[in-house]
Amino acid sequence: MKAQDYKEMPLRPVQTDGAESVSMRWLISQKEAPNFVMRMFEVAKNGHTPLHSHETEHEVFILEGQGELVYENEKKPFRTGYVVYVEPNKMHQFRNTGESTLKFICLIPNN
Amino acid sequence: MKAQDYKEMPLRPVQTDGAESVSMRWLISQKEAPNFVMRMFEVAKNGHTPLHSHETEHEVFILEGQGELVYENEKKPFRTGYVVYVEPNKMHQFRNTGESTLKFICLIPNN
Repeated sequence: MKAQDYKEMPLRPVQTDGAESVSMRWLISQKEAPNFVMRMFEVAKNGHTPLHSHETEHEVFILEGQGELVYENEKKPFRTGYVVYVEPNKMHQFRNTGESTLKFICLIPNN
Repeated sequence: MKAQDYKEMPLRPVQTDGAESVSMRWLISQKEAPNFVMRMFEVAKNGHTPLHSHETEHEVFILEGQGELVYENEKKPFRTGYVVYVEPNKMHQFRNTGESTLKFICLIPNN
């Protein structure tokens, strides 16, 4: 069992190619959970995650801030309280379009 | 792809035995997602989820409010920003111990 404030968990820069001003916390890792994991991303003003695709779907909840989902050839705005689902193998990127830090949790399956 | 405010999604009472003043929204359902699903629970003041156990683990993020996790023979307090992981087959219950509505997202695997 775990019950812990996310702010106590380490925040580390994401150094993947194409990531700009992104940091991540592991909230629930593969060591703890058999089927899927929970991460939190923090994207500073003007920052963005990589524009990429992969075999794992994303289940996302926007905790703070506002941004835009680039998805294949579309752009979709989001803000605090939005639920985002990204299917496997689709090009996607999360962009901060607001004045404050964008924070969201993002869950992916273990493979 | 989905990008939608959770407040637009239907909120329905949970009528499971042992649930008290609990409502739920399906945020990402089995129809959309192959591996795991996202629900949001709202527990009114003095309310609680059932005290029970089952084979599916829970991955939880506390969005608003404060409460207490009953877990086997322990009690663990939580508040906004807490991450909670409940292993499979462990007795557990989420209780609202605050003055306002407790809101959390809870993800479980598809079986």
